[in-house]
Amino acid sequence: MSQPSDSIVAAANARARHLLTEAIPIATVSALGEQLQEGADHFAGVLEAAGLHTEIWESPGAPVVFASRSAPPGKPTVLFYGHYDVQPPDPVEAWDSPPFVATLRDEAIFGRGSGDNKGQLLAHVGAVAELIARDELDVGVKFLVEGEEEIGSPHIGGVAATQRERLAADVAITADAPVHDDGRPVVIFGVRGLLFVEVELSGAPRDLHSGNRGGIAPTPAWTLVHALASLRDSAGKVSLPGFYDPVRGPNAEERAMLDALPTSAAHLIEELGAAGAEPWQERSPWEALGFQPNCNIAGLTAGYQGPGTKTVIPARASAKIDFRLVADQDPEAVYDALVEHLHRVDPEIRVRRTASVPPSATSPAAPFANDVIAAVRTATGLEPLLRPRLGGTTPDYIFTQVLGMPSILVPYGPPDMNHHAPNERMSLAALERGVACTIEICRRLGQDAPAI
Amino acid sequence: MSQPSDSIVAAANARARHLLTEAIPIATVSALGEQLQEGADHFAGVLEAAGLHTEIWESPGAPVVFASRSAPPGKPTVLFYGHYDVQPPDPVEAWDSPPFVATLRDEAIFGRGSGDNKGQLLAHVGAVAELIARDELDVGVKFLVEGEEEIGSPHIGGVAATQRERLAADVAITADAPVHDDGRPVVIFGVRGLLFVEVELSGAPRDLHSGNRGGIAPTPAWTLVHALASLRDSAGKVSLPGFYDPVRGPNAEERAMLDALPTSAAHLIEELGAAGAEPWQERSPWEALGFQPNCNIAGLTAGYQGPGTKTVIPARASAKIDFRLVADQDPEAVYDALVEHLHRVDPEIRVRRTASVPPSATSPAAPFANDVIAAVRTATGLEPLLRPRLGGTTPDYIFTQVLGMPSILVPYGPPDMNHHAPNERMSLAALERGVACTIEICRRLGQDAPAI
Repeated sequence: MSQPSDSIVAAANARARHLLTEAIPIATVSALGEQLQEGADHFAGVLEAAGLHTEIWESPGAPVVFASRSAPPGKPTVLFYGHYDVQPPDPVEAWDSPPFVATLRDEAIFGRGSGDNKGQLLAHVGAVAELIARDELDVGVKFLVEGEEEIGSPHIGGVAATQRERLAADVAITADAPVHDDGRPVVIFGVRGLLFVEVELSGAPRDLHSGNRGGIAPTPAWTLVHALASLRDSAGKVSLPGFYDPVRGPNAEERAMLDALPTSAAHLIEELGAAGAEPWQERSPWEALGFQPNCNIAGLTAGYQGPGTKTVIPARASAKIDFRLVADQDPEAVYDALVEHLHRVDPEIRVRRTASVPPSATSPAAPFANDVIAAVRTATGLEPLLRPRLGGTTPDYIFTQVLGMPSILVPYGPPDMNHHAPNERMSLAALERGVACTIEICRRLGQDAPAI
Repeated sequence: MSQPSDSIVAAANARARHLLTEAIPIATVSALGEQLQEGADHFAGVLEAAGLHTEIWESPGAPVVFASRSAPPGKPTVLFYGHYDVQPPDPVEAWDSPPFVATLRDEAIFGRGSGDNKGQLLAHVGAVAELIARDELDVGVKFLVEGEEEIGSPHIGGVAATQRERLAADVAITADAPVHDDGRPVVIFGVRGLLFVEVELSGAPRDLHSGNRGGIAPTPAWTLVHALASLRDSAGKVSLPGFYDPVRGPNAEERAMLDALPTSAAHLIEELGAAGAEPWQERSPWEALGFQPNCNIAGLTAGYQGPGTKTVIPARASAKIDFRLVADQDPEAVYDALVEHLHRVDPEIRVRRTASVPPSATSPAAPFANDVIAAVRTATGLEPLLRPRLGGTTPDYIFTQVLGMPSILVPYGPPDMNHHAPNERMSLAALERGVACTIEICRRLGQDAPAI
């Protein structure tokens, strides 16, 4: 099998770059509900122009873009998943160029969504568009593009369940993650789940003077601190009853994959800081990220947060908490245990769930897995690493659990592209690699028969 | 002893209202270091115009305004203390009129500083100015007006120590508190001290993706939560070693005063909320506020605080904490114990002290105390309540401990004037009562000999 010719990759890559430059300015911040219809319309137009039949499906939240092109007789269909929504740009002042302007510098395109996920998704689109233009697409192709991934994909599971026939395919491919820390391509067979909650407490009707009322007023900030401290010990262990019961470690095959994943101490130190990276220089972090759940405080808010001294008793205190869950943890069960635990601390604590995504896994022995691995090898000229589970979350369960097909993640973004952080970027080389991989995946699957 | 005549009170009150309207627009926010020189210049001009010899003393922080008018031979001198700085106006959006515009409505003057402390201070100034204008001031008068009270008066103690002779007086009078909760006038004989610290932790160099790194990244927000939870138990007891050793309860005379202070259940419910007020309907809150120390979380900050879902591991987490201390607690000793405690949790925790004010007490048997009580009785036509200690903090220790004189607090502001909160206000009736009390205090002291 030869690599895709330079000319088709170059032409497809030019498409992808242009499409990304046009997509970044649409500030599709799902956390704020901003510009989501505009984003859906834009991506539908892009997919229609690429030569696919396109529909916009309404959902109880952001619209879902679906596009398809039928498989030639006897050929399989690949379903590409991506999302047009992005994380909030905060803190905006930490960006070196405006987050919603596609800015080319240092051989990369900067902007919110440049990597996560507009850039990686548009690598797929540019490749498919160029294959169609050349009449070289020998595989069925579908795109499922949602607008709520960054808020935990609350509706795509329901949409998928009602659109099983339209979404039928032989394998799902997702490029929504970074490549391995050392920059090598990686093929991933599952994700952690996500449960995101907001916890809030109220005290007096308004902030009070801590001198005049300190000692007799309600203290929601203290109650919040004690509720959180009782949730996770200082070693990181979550204290919800039954939390670890469904957790199971890697099997022998997964263990071998984990052991083969390289760990760069220099990269960890740069990213985590010297103190944080210390334990992970000695042992592999990949098992912890893929096979251990985690409870994170994503935000804490109470009282006066400006510079200097202000002696108030806060009337309200709140926290944002996310759990990353591993197979076979159930976000519903974790949520129920969490609410019960918090209400034992204080029955007045308000808990609001904003995201609930089950974990997901595909066997590396699943149909087409070897084709995908081989395609990445051919397109990049590198032996791809194999990773059993991603630390992050995609709604991968809709493919493995709702639609019943194997699902494989093939990320293209470099590890330093600042997903969810200021100065998010997509290197030009990574974008081109994504285009080349997509072309090669389509070619290889086009030589296969569909799964039975 | 007759009440001050209506005409002198009315004239002095007109002066005070005019002065307050002029003073509110100067946004002297000491926490932000804003407009402090302008504030000092303004108040110096006001005191000079009132007929006092005025100086501005430089300090390592905000300038201090000193004004004096010598005592007639054989007469005592009264030292009025106040401050020209104010709290930050946050949350600005909660104000019904702009915080730095003096707005008259509902028989009150609204604006930041209208009560705390510009309004109460200018009641003194208006009264003294009118007495001087009528040549009826028979007592020596000094004013000490600082610009850092709201950030814990870090420099006024040092200034007082180097200006002992200029500041010499027979009794200090401060109007920097609300009157009693039921609106009755109160005379107060001490204050709680204050220790304010900012606690901060850092993790990774920047916020990280909680999926990609959750479980291996440093977690400063969790460390902060555990550090705080270990500082105070859920019942409110501070766990610093030795913290309660110097605390002593009220003596018999103080206990009698506390028992005589009325507690209004309706007022407590309005202010604290039904749940918060419940315990204090059964027993007196005044002992807790005056004779028990308290540890308050004034602010909590970490990660994403906007609406919706953002899955970041915060790179930094911080808290603002204030301790209210009672005689004979030493803020220096509490600070040392706090730092040692926090560093046992994590040696990397940064602790920054922004305010440190010792508690203070004056005996109700001190010279001139009965004159002040009688003056308030005469001026208001009401029997003043006597309160051993204020829950809040003023730098009262500079009078009792640095300058060695009795110090008495006579507040004028109503209890609902929203000190430190949005819609701070000073009722017109309260301002007039402050003017009347000041006139009567000066008259009574003018009939006395100085203390030996």
